[in-house]
Amino acid sequence: MSTPKVVICGDIVWAHDELKEMLGSTTNIVLMDCQTRAQFFENLTGSGKYANVVGFYRHNSSADRIGIFDAELISKLPDSCKAICHNGAGYDQIDVKACKQRGIIVSNTPGAVDEGTATTALYLLLSALRQFSIAERNLRALKWKSGLPPAHDPSAMTLGLLGMGGIGVYFAKMAHALPMKKIYYHNRSPKKDAPEWAEYVPTLDELLEKCDVLSVHCPLNEHTVGLVGEAQIRKLRKGSIIINTARGKVIDEAALIRALEDGHLYAAGLDVYPDEPNVNPRLMEFRNVTLLPHMGTETEESQRAMEVRALQNLVDYFQTGKPRDLLAELRS
Amino acid sequence: MSTPKVVICGDIVWAHDELKEMLGSTTNIVLMDCQTRAQFFENLTGSGKYANVVGFYRHNSSADRIGIFDAELISKLPDSCKAICHNGAGYDQIDVKACKQRGIIVSNTPGAVDEGTATTALYLLLSALRQFSIAERNLRALKWKSGLPPAHDPSAMTLGLLGMGGIGVYFAKMAHALPMKKIYYHNRSPKKDAPEWAEYVPTLDELLEKCDVLSVHCPLNEHTVGLVGEAQIRKLRKGSIIINTARGKVIDEAALIRALEDGHLYAAGLDVYPDEPNVNPRLMEFRNVTLLPHMGTETEESQRAMEVRALQNLVDYFQTGKPRDLLAELRS
Repeated sequence: MSTPKVVICGDIVWAHDELKEMLGSTTNIVLMDCQTRAQFFENLTGSGKYANVVGFYRHNSSADRIGIFDAELISKLPDSCKAICHNGAGYDQIDVKACKQRGIIVSNTPGAVDEGTATTALYLLLSALRQFSIAERNLRALKWKSGLPPAHDPSAMTLGLLGMGGIGVYFAKMAHALPMKKIYYHNRSPKKDAPEWAEYVPTLDELLEKCDVLSVHCPLNEHTVGLVGEAQIRKLRKGSIIINTARGKVIDEAALIRALEDGHLYAAGLDVYPDEPNVNPRLMEFRNVTLLPHMGTETEESQRAMEVRALQNLVDYFQTGKPRDLLAELRS
Repeated sequence: MSTPKVVICGDIVWAHDELKEMLGSTTNIVLMDCQTRAQFFENLTGSGKYANVVGFYRHNSSADRIGIFDAELISKLPDSCKAICHNGAGYDQIDVKACKQRGIIVSNTPGAVDEGTATTALYLLLSALRQFSIAERNLRALKWKSGLPPAHDPSAMTLGLLGMGGIGVYFAKMAHALPMKKIYYHNRSPKKDAPEWAEYVPTLDELLEKCDVLSVHCPLNEHTVGLVGEAQIRKLRKGSIIINTARGKVIDEAALIRALEDGHLYAAGLDVYPDEPNVNPRLMEFRNVTLLPHMGTETEESQRAMEVRALQNLVDYFQTGKPRDLLAELRS
């Protein structure tokens, strides 16, 4: 039996030693170094570098060169391919249905991203509530604090979480400690490990009616694309705040912009956008919007943890046939 | 007995109704409307508007027109003056020794400022750890996240609090919930109501050796001016962070700048400066410094609470002779 081939498809920045330790002696590690999608496809066949690949480590950074793992790409994978271990919590760049049809399992890295993303949401929350980002631009324009709008203390505001996975729970604990006035969440069902002070709300509409700050923590999929649209934003009280550290397309950007234009929203804090790395220039014109370049998990510690976790899922696959973070929709 | 005169010296923005309710029927309320210090002094004598003043409500905003309450100003106050109820936690603009000699009592507004200032410290902590402020400037310069330095998760870092009054305790609770790796504090003595997970450190030097992030929460006075100087900053580990939401002069600014120049400090987050509203232009040149325009307590809720608390101290004086927030150095 030959040593199984693993293809590293996208960045490993921190966990070089771990890669060697975890997979070096049991697999044949090949770094994906194609510059184009066509090259990648070519190397999957015949005596190509990735022929007979069994498992992929995948990071979104590979999309710049070979594109996303859509139905086309999945259809080109050789029959030897059994596992795609993705580095990231969100896996909207992988066509999971196509993988399922071909019997390829897919894992992500929940947990490892919780702290980084929750910290980003907290920063955006504080910046929006207190208008800190405006204030720094004001100071740097030598205007000190003249003309700043009245701001709010966290304890005067309620928080509504749309989605209560690992990131939602982590962020809820931070927000509770500020403290915020009250924390609500909406999820498909009540979360078993949700803290008792976080109140479950059975419908999105009810969540929107109760919260002063709406923070998005659900994955992007066919059920959540455009979930926060015109009607939903208008159900928020006038003077509300929207925070998004999940995926840009969960919010209807045009509706968000309209609500900022007419003052329905007091402020917004965004780490994610529908068409990254492009940011709608209109968003930059609002004083009261804090904009970050999708950096929820960009810390040395979180990046390393995510890389190790994705590699661990490969190890799990080779040892047991089942990565610990196998996607829920593939468990059966 | 005539109705005692109260002079409102500086801004009341939110608590207009409260002012009327709390003091309208028992005192003669006069708004200080001088444009110069000389005018103010003139009106303190003879049949001037402020002659026979018994109590002052004071806010730092009055300094723009009549200067601070230094020894000269205190010496000009009529013998009728018995109480200066200051709106603010820090009272470095009042010469308390001169007040004590003249038998004038002084109060501040601790407590009311805790949430606002602690929230500001938390924002600066997150911005410094994660380089969020840099990142937003990067995005707005259309550079997305290229060239951002590696950042850190809170859980990888220890926090050292210099000073553990109300603000310190409030901030410690927020930082603990992130969570940070460990929280230390230095104070003249262990704080009775400090949480059990916050470890008391008996000397400043020991605090500096233990922490990755130093956050200043002590008042400015003769013992604390320049307290964080060259030697102290160099006792911090290379790669440390300094946060200051207390008073600019507690830190030796030149030493801080040197430590940013040579990379001893990873980042800094400042809400206060030695010569406000002027900010040393050198500070604006560092990418890794987040700068806010002394806005620790600038929220509608905190401002109102502080105004009401300062007014309550006046009510206390008239009812019992002793404001609830009488300064510790005047209690005897």
